[in-house]
Amino acid sequence: MVPHLITALTGPINELEQRILESMPVIERWFRLEWMEHTPPFYTAVDVRNAGFKLCPVATHLFPAGWHHLTPQMLPLAVQAAMAAIEKICPEARNLLIVPDNQLTEGDFASLAQLSNVFRMAGLNVRFGSISPELNAPKTVQVPGFGPVSLEPAVRSKHRLGLSDFDPCTILLNNDLVQGVPGILEELHEQYLLPPLHAGWDTRRMSRHFEVYEELAKRFGKQLGVDHWLLNPIVGTTGLIDIAKPSGAEALRAQIDGVLTRIRRKFKDYAVNEKPFVVVRSDNGRRQWEPFAVRDPKEVEAALAQRVAALAAAGQSTQVELLVKEGLLTQERVNDDPAEPTVYLMDRYVVGGFYRVQTGRHRDDGLMPASAGYEPLAFAGGTQLPQLGAKPGASEPNRFYMYGVVARLAMLAAAYELEATDPQAEADA
Amino acid sequence: MVPHLITALTGPINELEQRILESMPVIERWFRLEWMEHTPPFYTAVDVRNAGFKLCPVATHLFPAGWHHLTPQMLPLAVQAAMAAIEKICPEARNLLIVPDNQLTEGDFASLAQLSNVFRMAGLNVRFGSISPELNAPKTVQVPGFGPVSLEPAVRSKHRLGLSDFDPCTILLNNDLVQGVPGILEELHEQYLLPPLHAGWDTRRMSRHFEVYEELAKRFGKQLGVDHWLLNPIVGTTGLIDIAKPSGAEALRAQIDGVLTRIRRKFKDYAVNEKPFVVVRSDNGRRQWEPFAVRDPKEVEAALAQRVAALAAAGQSTQVELLVKEGLLTQERVNDDPAEPTVYLMDRYVVGGFYRVQTGRHRDDGLMPASAGYEPLAFAGGTQLPQLGAKPGASEPNRFYMYGVVARLAMLAAAYELEATDPQAEADA
Repeated sequence: MVPHLITALTGPINELEQRILESMPVIERWFRLEWMEHTPPFYTAVDVRNAGFKLCPVATHLFPAGWHHLTPQMLPLAVQAAMAAIEKICPEARNLLIVPDNQLTEGDFASLAQLSNVFRMAGLNVRFGSISPELNAPKTVQVPGFGPVSLEPAVRSKHRLGLSDFDPCTILLNNDLVQGVPGILEELHEQYLLPPLHAGWDTRRMSRHFEVYEELAKRFGKQLGVDHWLLNPIVGTTGLIDIAKPSGAEALRAQIDGVLTRIRRKFKDYAVNEKPFVVVRSDNGRRQWEPFAVRDPKEVEAALAQRVAALAAAGQSTQVELLVKEGLLTQERVNDDPAEPTVYLMDRYVVGGFYRVQTGRHRDDGLMPASAGYEPLAFAGGTQLPQLGAKPGASEPNRFYMYGVVARLAMLAAAYELEATDPQAEADA
Repeated sequence: MVPHLITALTGPINELEQRILESMPVIERWFRLEWMEHTPPFYTAVDVRNAGFKLCPVATHLFPAGWHHLTPQMLPLAVQAAMAAIEKICPEARNLLIVPDNQLTEGDFASLAQLSNVFRMAGLNVRFGSISPELNAPKTVQVPGFGPVSLEPAVRSKHRLGLSDFDPCTILLNNDLVQGVPGILEELHEQYLLPPLHAGWDTRRMSRHFEVYEELAKRFGKQLGVDHWLLNPIVGTTGLIDIAKPSGAEALRAQIDGVLTRIRRKFKDYAVNEKPFVVVRSDNGRRQWEPFAVRDPKEVEAALAQRVAALAAAGQSTQVELLVKEGLLTQERVNDDPAEPTVYLMDRYVVGGFYRVQTGRHRDDGLMPASAGYEPLAFAGGTQLPQLGAKPGASEPNRFYMYGVVARLAMLAAAYELEATDPQAEADA
């Protein structure tokens, strides 16, 4: 089953699809040449939003969860890509330690089990080392469909991280470090740490990601002869503000005004008959910040008052860094439920993807109420094999290929981002 | 549908499968390290024979046909591997010219169409340039299931090969050069020629391939703690002989005796209750040489007389180079018909495989009568994803994984072979 598009797809996105298909050799060559100069993140998942009139990445995850949603058909691609990745980074690798998040849901365990399968089938000995201070003894969880997953407390020696009886040459982080980098992961100079620590939210900023992405989208759009706005979400950022203070609220309002104005101009150019809105997110992945949508700057005051109260109640600082992002609603539906695609990449390769089909009530701003659930729906077929010669908008393989192109563009932006924030590069310079 | 094995699989091959599964991390790491030192052939197909008591490559093709037998599920793997191969060899590539064989069957056209799809989906502009002296104008053939395939006469300029309106940076040979290297392909120093000319039968000898393979099988077997004979066919070679002369016949008989003696010894060691036989093939791919089997050296005289007469009738020289190879009968059956697997590889990756199910009467020496046909049967699932923890002999994925390991071992032998015969390496030395 493939979600249907509720839009007629006669607009600029159709032209975009056609250009992407026609330009396939140009696009693939462009990526090849970029990857010669820039190292892709080890693994990536990109949430993509097809708004009917434009197609954008909305989040680029460098410590992806959700691997269990990949189908058995996608698994060989992931294994092959994992082999390529290991070969490039550490061909002599034998043992891989996966460091998961400190808090894990049932789905997270299934994702870890799948991830471990991928690397075992690529020929590594794989074990899990938890850095949660709460895990003091091995803990085994039965994961339906996957069997047992054992978490063991990671053990730190002077220069290495491992388990009491397992010395890995490579450590795969599946922990986004949103709480900061714990000491146990610092100065592991003898082992490969993938992705590096500065890929964590301790260092990353969404605004920096989208800034880099915009530059790439411009270059990419120029090559294809399409307006980069079709691929690029308009964003603004507040920097560090205190939302409890009038100056902080004012700074946010200014960003919202700016982004809304820019969206309005584009909607006019493209005759998009929708009301623009923005989504206000944490710029650095803070989980305490519940995103909210704004259609009218007048709504900001009430939303902020609510957030200030919530942060205060949780004993959290009201100093925040916020991202103001063009709001985009998915136009894909499964049984009237909105479907949002995520594309999975390993090394430079698109290995698969799935839809989150929102089964709870979806709000008219695209944000999910806390009570909502979702059903995963794997992509039908690959994201890799375009259907050459098909009519724009009519071919699911071509839609998936287009999603894979946008996801790779976002991954490339992350590669640039990691280069720019690499502390080692600064030390070398 | 997967062919069933007619043997009980309780013998040494079961132990081999178990060792291969257990040693997966060791095996994958070993290949990774080998590929750091040695360049895999661009693409390879390996015919594998599971004789029930041993598992061997029987032919390693460096200009493979039969790509159309790969299933849609295998295609993404082939595309991903093609992307990896191109990226390593010529990332700046735009245009690829495929040079097919001069004689093409209907199946060959389908194979070319599939091959072209793989490289188009990897992002290249692909066209076919024939070097057949008989093709003077473009010729388009409708290939059922694939659409039109256009062959155009390749055009040679001083330093480049192309079409009148197509200048490729890379030329993919799908022509095994069994007739020798034509001048039109020589000294193309400005373009990538893949595989190189010395991968053709003009240079290659099966005996050299199996000699290198034996060394690798010994090293590989040592690591796994298994006798390399379980993976390695015993071979002998005559060098250049004139089979019309008594000295030539004598030289062949000596090789046959030697190989039969060595097989007998092994059969005794392993209590294999079969009559040993050998197959006598052309060592350098000559198509005029019809292979024959020998169970008793007394049969040689009659067979040679028949071959001398056939070569004389065709106006061909009786000077030949022959390979004497341990005869192996496949123990896999589909509806009582023998099934012989071929594994397909692109760059260092196993991308798929299929069985030739022999629908004509199969002779008791495993050779096919000229009148026989075969049905292709794609591997069910990949060759890449072993089923960890399954009982030896009971798991089809594990059988395919084992086939993929043996195929990669043969491909690695071809890599060594090409290094040793590289004229450029000699010039550089």
